[in-house]
Amino acid sequence: MTQSDKPSSQAFIEGVALIVGGGPGISSSCARLFAKSGMRVGIAARNPDKSVLQNLEETHGVRRYECDASEPTAVELLFQNVVRDLGTPTLVVHNIDGRVSGIFRKGIAEADPSMVLETLRNSAFSAFLVGQQAAQHMRENKINANGTKGTIIFTNASAALKGFPSSGAFAMACHAKSGLAQSMARELMPEGIHIANVPIDAAIGRTQEDGTRAHRRAGKTVDDNMADPDCIAETYLQLHRQHRSTWAFEVVLRPWVERW
Amino acid sequence: MTQSDKPSSQAFIEGVALIVGGGPGISSSCARLFAKSGMRVGIAARNPDKSVLQNLEETHGVRRYECDASEPTAVELLFQNVVRDLGTPTLVVHNIDGRVSGIFRKGIAEADPSMVLETLRNSAFSAFLVGQQAAQHMRENKINANGTKGTIIFTNASAALKGFPSSGAFAMACHAKSGLAQSMARELMPEGIHIANVPIDAAIGRTQEDGTRAHRRAGKTVDDNMADPDCIAETYLQLHRQHRSTWAFEVVLRPWVERW
Amino acid sequence: MTQSDKPSSQAFIEGVALIVGGGPGISSSCARLFAKSGMRVGIAARNPDKSVLQNLEETHGVRRYECDASEPTAVELLFQNVVRDLGTPTLVVHNIDGRVSGIFRKGIAEADPSMVLETLRNSAFSAFLVGQQAAQHMRENKINANGTKGTIIFTNASAALKGFPSSGAFAMACHAKSGLAQSMARELMPEGIHIANVPIDAAIGRTQEDGTRAHRRAGKTVDDNMADPDCIAETYLQLHRQHRSTWAFEVVLRPWVERW
Amino acid sequence: MTQSDKPSSQAFIEGVALIVGGGPGISSSCARLFAKSGMRVGIAARNPDKSVLQNLEETHGVRRYECDASEPTAVELLFQNVVRDLGTPTLVVHNIDGRVSGIFRKGIAEADPSMVLETLRNSAFSAFLVGQQAAQHMRENKINANGTKGTIIFTNASAALKGFPSSGAFAMACHAKSGLAQSMARELMPEGIHIANVPIDAAIGRTQEDGTRAHRRAGKTVDDNMADPDCIAETYLQLHRQHRSTWAFEVVLRPWVERW
Repeated sequence: MTQSDKPSSQAFIEGVALIVGGGPGISSSCARLFAKSGMRVGIAARNPDKSVLQNLEETHGVRRYECDASEPTAVELLFQNVVRDLGTPTLVVHNIDGRVSGIFRKGIAEADPSMVLETLRNSAFSAFLVGQQAAQHMRENKINANGTKGTIIFTNASAALKGFPSSGAFAMACHAKSGLAQSMARELMPEGIHIANVPIDAAIGRTQEDGTRAHRRAGKTVDDNMADPDCIAETYLQLHRQHRSTWAFEVVLRPWVERW
Repeated sequence: MTQSDKPSSQAFIEGVALIVGGGPGISSSCARLFAKSGMRVGIAARNPDKSVLQNLEETHGVRRYECDASEPTAVELLFQNVVRDLGTPTLVVHNIDGRVSGIFRKGIAEADPSMVLETLRNSAFSAFLVGQQAAQHMRENKINANGTKGTIIFTNASAALKGFPSSGAFAMACHAKSGLAQSMARELMPEGIHIANVPIDAAIGRTQEDGTRAHRRAGKTVDDNMADPDCIAETYLQLHRQHRSTWAFEVVLRPWVERW
Repeated sequence: MTQSDKPSSQAFIEGVALIVGGGPGISSSCARLFAKSGMRVGIAARNPDKSVLQNLEETHGVRRYECDASEPTAVELLFQNVVRDLGTPTLVVHNIDGRVSGIFRKGIAEADPSMVLETLRNSAFSAFLVGQQAAQHMRENKINANGTKGTIIFTNASAALKGFPSSGAFAMACHAKSGLAQSMARELMPEGIHIANVPIDAAIGRTQEDGTRAHRRAGKTVDDNMADPDCIAETYLQLHRQHRSTWAFEVVLRPWVERW
Repeated sequence: MTQSDKPSSQAFIEGVALIVGGGPGISSSCARLFAKSGMRVGIAARNPDKSVLQNLEETHGVRRYECDASEPTAVELLFQNVVRDLGTPTLVVHNIDGRVSGIFRKGIAEADPSMVLETLRNSAFSAFLVGQQAAQHMRENKINANGTKGTIIFTNASAALKGFPSSGAFAMACHAKSGLAQSMARELMPEGIHIANVPIDAAIGRTQEDGTRAHRRAGKTVDDNMADPDCIAETYLQLHRQHRSTWAFEVVLRPWVERW
C-alpha cells in the first residue's frame, strides 16, 4: 500500500494538476497518481493523440492538450485553456527532456549548432515559459491548508549535477533548468509558491501502461535498478503536500545500485 | 489529515525505530509519528529521565535509553539493548546538534579549543558511532517490500551547506557529518541500506508536547516561518518508506520565508 | 610588480590569444596583459570600431574582428580569420555577459520571453559556438612545455553559483555556461586542452584605459571592493600557464569584502 | 622557467612562511619555492629530524620546528617560536593528511572508532588550531601592497569533494576542513586575511629531493598523470600574491587525465 491510496479528503488541497510533456514514463505515472488522489488532471504534449495519452483519458479522465512548449504563445494559450476547462492549476510539472535525437553522445566538435540551440529551446526555454505561466496563474490561488498557493516541479537529469563528456548541449540545458528553478524558488517561495527541482540520477524504468510493475507484485525486489516512474510520481505528490514550514527545493532520486 | 495517520499495515515495513538524541523538537516529533505508524520506538539521551521523554513513554510507549553517544562502548551497548528489547532497528535517526554552549558565535580567535573538540566528538564522532552500529545490525535484516534493509537518517543544519563566520566548530562538525553520510551512502546503498542527510536550513519551531501547533489548527497559516518538527518527522518517514528504485540521499528542508 | 611583467621567454608557450567579447573591462585587461607577455592577440566584438578597441590596437598591436558570437557561421569565420592572421589560438577567452538590457531585475512573470531566449543565445549558445571552434582548432596544436595544446576560459558570474530572484534568464544562461564548461573539461582535458570556468562573484571595477588604477599606485589599498579586471586577467594567464599535472577547472574570484 | 624564479622584490610582500606538516611532497616543494622567492621559511613536523627536512635547512635555510599539531599548547608554542625566530607569519600552510594507517579503506563496520577520532584530531582539529593561531597573529600584521595581512592555505583532498565508500573517517576529516576554511574565509577575509582551501583531486606525484622531475626536463611531457607538488606550491604562491580585489577561496587541482 502506498501514499497514492490517500483518500480524496486531500482533494481540496491538490486541486488541478497540469503535466507538460507527455510520454509513457514519469508523465503517465504522475497523471495516474494525481487523478487517483482526487485532482483534476491535464496533460500537454506536441502530439496528444498518442495511444498512451488516450488511455490516460479513458482510464483516469485525464484531459489532453496539444502544445509545443517551446513557443511562448502556445504555452500562454495552454494555460488559458486549462484554467477554463479544469480551473487554475495548483500543481504544474515540467517533464520535458528536450534532447533532439541527433545530439546524443556527440563530442563538442561534432555537435550540430542548430540541434544544440533546439535542445536549449525544448528544455530550458520551455521550462521558463511553463514556469512563467504557472507563476502568473498560481498567484491568483488562495492559500491552502499547507500554506501553499501551488507547486511547480521541474523534472531534471544527472546532467544537471555533472556535465558529462560528449554531452555539452544536454549539460547546458539541464544546468539552465536548475538555475531557473533556483531563481524562481528564491522569488516565489516567499509568495507561497513551492518550487522543486528533481534531478533523476538514473535511467527511468519502463512501467506497464496498466500501472503494474513486476517488482512491486508480492513484495518481489527484482528489476529495480532503474528509477521507477511510479515512485517518482509519489515523491512529486509528497512535495506538493509539504507544509510550507519545511519545503524541499531540490531532491535527487537515484536507485540503490547507481554509482555517483 | 496528514501522512502520520497511515494505518499500521505498514508496520511490517517499518519495524523498529531508534532515535539517538532526545529533546522536545525533532526527536519527540519523530517518536510520536513513528509510534503512531506502528513502529516499536526507542529513544536514547544522556538524560533519559527528563519529563519530555517520560511523557513519550506514557503516551506512545516509547522506550527510553541512557547513552552518551560520543562513547564507543556506550553506543555499542545501546544497540545491544535495543535489539534485545525491541528487535533490530530498521530506522535509525541521529539527531544530535552537539554544540557545547560555550562555542556559540565565537570568532576563530576566541573559540576554546577544548570546546571545539568536544563539539566534534558530540556531533560528528557520535554520528559515526551510531552509523557504524546501525549499519552492522541492519545488515542482518531481511529486505522488506521496498527493497530495504533499513534507513539511517542524519539530521543536519545550515552549517552543513555553508560555513558561517564565527562558527568554525559547528561548520566543521556539520560538514563532517555530511561527509560521513555520503561515504556511508556510497558504501551501504548497494547493500540495501538507505542513508539520508537532512540539513534543516532554519530555526526549528517549538511544538507543544501534546503535538498540537497553533498554525495547523483550523487551517490557519500563521507561525510557520520556522521549521515545524512534526513536518520534519513526516519527511523522515517518507524517506524510510521510499522504494529503493528511487532513494533520495540529501533533502534540505527550509521554510518558505527563509533566505538562502 | 606583478606577474604581468613576465619576460617574453614564455611566448613560445602562450602563442596566440583570442578574446571574444570586447569592452573596457576584463577583455581589455586581458588583451593588454596577453600582448605584454608576448602573445599575438585578437579581440572579437559586434562593434570592433569602438574607441577602446582601437586604442588596444594602437598601443598593444591587438587585432580587431567583427563577430556576432551567437551566429554559427560568424564564429566559424572568425576562427578562420584568426588562424590566417595570427595562427591557431592557444588561449581563447569567452567573455560575454549576454544579458539584453530589458531583462535586468525582471520578475519571472514580467520577463519578456523573446529577451530570455536572446539572453540564452548571446551567452550560453555563443559560449558553445566559441568553445566548439576553439576545441576543433586547438586539437591541431602541438603540446607545449606545460603539456598543453591550449586553454579555453569562460568568464562567468555569481548567477552561475546561485540563481537569484528576479533574474531567471541570467541564472539559466550562467548555469548553462557552467554545464558546458564541465562537459568540455571532461571531454577535452584528457586530450591536453585546459578548460576553465571563472565566475566573478562581484561587480567588476572600472579600470582606466591606460591601465592605471589608483589603488595600485604607491601601495594604496582604497577602491578595491570590486573585482579589478587587471587582476582577473592575471588569473587567466596563470591558468593558461598551469602545467597539466595540476589544472584548476573552476576558480571563483571575489573581493575581500564581498558577502557570499 | 616558472614563477618560482620571481626576484626578491616581492619579499616585502611575502615575508614569513610557516608550513605545518613536513614531508617530501607538497611541504618540501612549498618550502623550497617560498625560500627561493625571498621568504623566511619555517616548517613544523612531529619529527623535524628526518633527512628531508634537514636537507631543506641546509639547501634553503628552512627552519625546523617540532610540533604535534593536534595539541593546542604545542601549536600555540610553535607560533610563539616562529614569531621570535622569523617574525609574524604572512603565509601559513596546513598540509596534514591526518589519516592513521589503520583506517585506510576500512568499511564503516570495520573502522576502529579510536582511529576515526585520531584521524579527526590529526586533520580537522589540527587545522582549527593552526588556523586559530595564524589568524590571531596575522591580525597584527600591516596590510601589504596587495591589501593583505596574510594568507592561510589548507591543503585538502578529493574526500573533501565527495565521500567515498569505505572511507568515512577521511571523508569526515576533509569535509570538516572545508567547513572550517569556509567559516574562516567569511570571518577573516573582510579583515584582510586571505583563506584558501585547495583540494588536490589526485594522487601526489613524487619529486626528487633536488627539485628535479623527469617530465620538466627538456620539455618532456611524460609522467604527469599525478599532481606535481612543485606545481601545487606554485599555485599556493599565486594565491598568496593575489590582490584582495580578486581572491580565490577554493581551487581544486587535478591532473589532465583524472576522472571526476
